Amino acid sequence: MGDIKRVAVLGSTGSIGRQTLEVIGALPHRFSIIGLAVGRNTDLLAEQISRFQPRFVHSQDKTPPTNAKYEFLSLEEMASHPEVDIVVMATSGKWGLKPTLAAVKAGKKIALANKESLVMAGEIITAEARLSGAQIRPVDSEHSAIWQCLEGEKQKAARIILTASGGPFRGYSTARLAKVTPEQALKHPSWRMGKKVTIDSATLMNKGLEVIEARWLFDMPFDNIRILVHPQSIIHSMVEFADGSVKAQLGQPDMRLPIQYALTYPERLANPNLPRLDWDNIKELNFEPPDFDRFPCLKLAIEAGKKGGTHPAALCAADETAVELFLSKLIEFTDIARLVGQALEKHKSIAHPTLEEILAADTKTREKVKQMAGDTQ
Amino acid sequence: MGDIKRVAVLGSTGSIGRQTLEVIGALPHRFSIIGLAVGRNTDLLAEQISRFQPRFVHSQDKTPPTNAKYEFLSLEEMASHPEVDIVVMATSGKWGLKPTLAAVKAGKKIALANKESLVMAGEIITAEARLSGAQIRPVDSEHSAIWQCLEGEKQKAARIILTASGGPFRGYSTARLAKVTPEQALKHPSWRMGKKVTIDSATLMNKGLEVIEARWLFDMPFDNIRILVHPQSIIHSMVEFADGSVKAQLGQPDMRLPIQYALTYPERLANPNLPRLDWDNIKELNFEPPDFDRFPCLKLAIEAGKKGGTHPAALCAADETAVELFLSKLIEFTDIARLVGQALEKHKSIAHPTLEEILAADTKTREKVKQMAGDTQ
Repeated sequence: MGDIKRVAVLGSTGSIGRQTLEVIGALPHRFSIIGLAVGRNTDLLAEQISRFQPRFVHSQDKTPPTNAKYEFLSLEEMASHPEVDIVVMATSGKWGLKPTLAAVKAGKKIALANKESLVMAGEIITAEARLSGAQIRPVDSEHSAIWQCLEGEKQKAARIILTASGGPFRGYSTARLAKVTPEQALKHPSWRMGKKVTIDSATLMNKGLEVIEARWLFDMPFDNIRILVHPQSIIHSMVEFADGSVKAQLGQPDMRLPIQYALTYPERLANPNLPRLDWDNIKELNFEPPDFDRFPCLKLAIEAGKKGGTHPAALCAADETAVELFLSKLIEFTDIARLVGQALEKHKSIAHPTLEEILAADTKTREKVKQMAGDTQ
Repeated sequence: MGDIKRVAVLGSTGSIGRQTLEVIGALPHRFSIIGLAVGRNTDLLAEQISRFQPRFVHSQDKTPPTNAKYEFLSLEEMASHPEVDIVVMATSGKWGLKPTLAAVKAGKKIALANKESLVMAGEIITAEARLSGAQIRPVDSEHSAIWQCLEGEKQKAARIILTASGGPFRGYSTARLAKVTPEQALKHPSWRMGKKVTIDSATLMNKGLEVIEARWLFDMPFDNIRILVHPQSIIHSMVEFADGSVKAQLGQPDMRLPIQYALTYPERLANPNLPRLDWDNIKELNFEPPDFDRFPCLKLAIEAGKKGGTHPAALCAADETAVELFLSKLIEFTDIARLVGQALEKHKSIAHPTLEEILAADTKTREKVKQMAGDTQ
C-alpha cells in the first residue's frame, strides 16, 4: 500500500503518454516517474524531464536535453530495467513491439496502450507472459472495461460485447466517405486521441484491431466477440457470462480513467480530475449493429485475425502505411481499406511466426502498399 | 464443487418460490430441496412435495398433505436446521422476519427475496450476521446487480444507482392515478412477480423499500443511493467507484437469473432456460429522474429509512395494509400513499428497537391504517 511505484512511460509525449503523466502528477504519493521515452518531440521531453526528474531517458534521435542528470537507455533496456515497477507502453504502431516483449520477458506489470504489439505478436507475447508472470493491464477503454467486468469472476466470459462509437462518419454513404478529408477524419466525436488511432477510429480499423487484441488479452474465440455500435461511448464494453448475466463498465469518454486503473489496480483511487457520469444529462444510450460494407476495414481486420500467422502483422503494416498516405493527402479515405485489402490478398502468411518473421512481414507489406499506391496514382 | 447443496425454500408456492424450484429443477446435480414451507396453498405444496421429496415441510395451517414421508418443522426450525446449506427466503411481508433472523443467527447462506425483513430490522439482522458469519445473498434483481458489480472490488462503492422501471403508470397524472384499478395495477410491464410487490412497483413503494434494503446490504448512506428510472428494466442497477468508473449488470427482466446467482455464487452456471439479452433487438436504453410528487410513496419510504428506528417497520405495515385495502377495492390507488403518509406522521418511533418493539410497531400501525381507512369511508 504505502510504497511508491516507479513508472516508466514509453511514448510520454503522445496522447496517452501525456495523459499518463497528468494522472501520475495528481497521485504523487503513489507513483513516481523513473523513465521517459519519446520519439522526436524533444522539446516536450525537456519539459517533462524538468517536471518529473526521471532517472532514465530515451529519445529516438539520441540527443535529448542534457541539462538534467539521467541515464540514457534503449527502449528495451528501460522496459525491462529491474528498478521499474510498471511499464506504460504508450507508443503507437510497431515501435511498441520489441519493448513490450522486453517488458513481458522481464515479468513486468505492463499498462498496454500499444495495441499493435498484441495484434502483431499476440501469440508470442501471451506465451512469454505465461512463462514470466508478466501482467498485461489493458489501457484501451474497451479492454479496460472488459477487464474490470471480469474482476472477481471465477470463470471466463462466455462472450465479449465490444462497443464502438462508430466514428465520425457513422451515417456516411460510401460515396460521401470517399470525399472525407484528413481534417474531418481527425475530429473524433467523443475521444481525444493520437492521429493514427483517430483515423483508425474513422475507418473502424481501430475496432477490428481491438477485436484481435481482445482475442489475446482474454483468450476469447473470435466468434464470441461481438461488436456493437454505441455512439455515446458511455458503455465502454460488456461481458456476458455463462448464466446470461451481462456486466458493463461505463464512464465519461476519457482515457485518464483506464490509464489510472491500469496503474492503481487492484485498487481504485479517488482523483478529483477524473470526470463522472452525470445521470441528469444522460437520457438515452443507443445501439446498432456495425456496417461491415461501408466500413470494410472492420471485416478485413477480423478476417486477418482469424487467419492468424503473419496476417495481423501485414494488416497493421498496410493500415499504418495507408493512413500515412491519407494524412499526406496522397490517397482518398476509402483507399485505406482498398489498399489494406489488396495487401492482405497478396500476403503469404507464415503460421506461428517468430518475431523476425513478423517484422519481415511488416517491412515487406509497407513497401508493397507504397508501391500499390504509387501504381494507382 | 462436486457436492450437492441442500436448499430450504420458505415461501415455495409464491412467485419467487416457484421460480426457485424451476431453477433448482434444472440443476439437479448441484442442488436438492431439503425443505419446503408455504402459507396456505397446500394443493401446490402437495405437487411440490411429490416432485422434490423434501425431508422438512411447513405450512401455515399445519395440515400439509400427508401422503409423503417428511418432518413437520416451524419456519424458524427449518431456517436454522443444521442440515440446511442454503435458505431461500421467498415469503413476502413481515412473515419473513423471524425465520430470516433464525437463519442469520445459525450462520446460514441466505438467498433473501424478502425485503421487509431488512427494511424492518436491518440493524438487528446485519449485526447478527456479522456475529454469526451468515451470508446474505440478495435475490432482488437490483441488489443482485449491485452485488455482482461489487464482486472482486477491493473497496466499497462510492455510490449506488438503483434503477427503477417506473412501474405501469410512469406517465400518469395524479388525477389519472386515482382511478387506477387493482386489475390495471397488477399488470407490470416487465416483471413477473407476486401481487403485493406488483402493487408496490406501481406506487414506487417497492423502489423506496429497495433503497432501505440497499442501505443495509451494502452499508451505504442514503445520500449515496440514487434512483434512476429506466423503463426497459435491462440495466438492473449500477455502482460508481471512487475513481468515477461505473459498473452495471444487465439482463432480461427475469427473476430466475438473480435466484440462480444467489444459489450458485461465487460460480455461474450455464442454464439453457435462462433468457439472454438480444442486442439485435435492443436499440436504446432510456433514463429519467423519478417523480417524487406523483409517486409520494418513494419519498415516504426514503424519509422513513433516514429517520430509522421503528419508522421503516411502520412504513412496511402501513403499506401492506393499504395495499390489501386497495386490492379489496376499499380504497383508491392514491389512497395508499395518503394512508402510509398519515400513519408515518402519527408514528412514535423507538430508536434502535428490539425485535419485539419492531413487531409491536407493525401491529399497531396495521390497526391504525385500517381505522383511518374506515374513518374516511
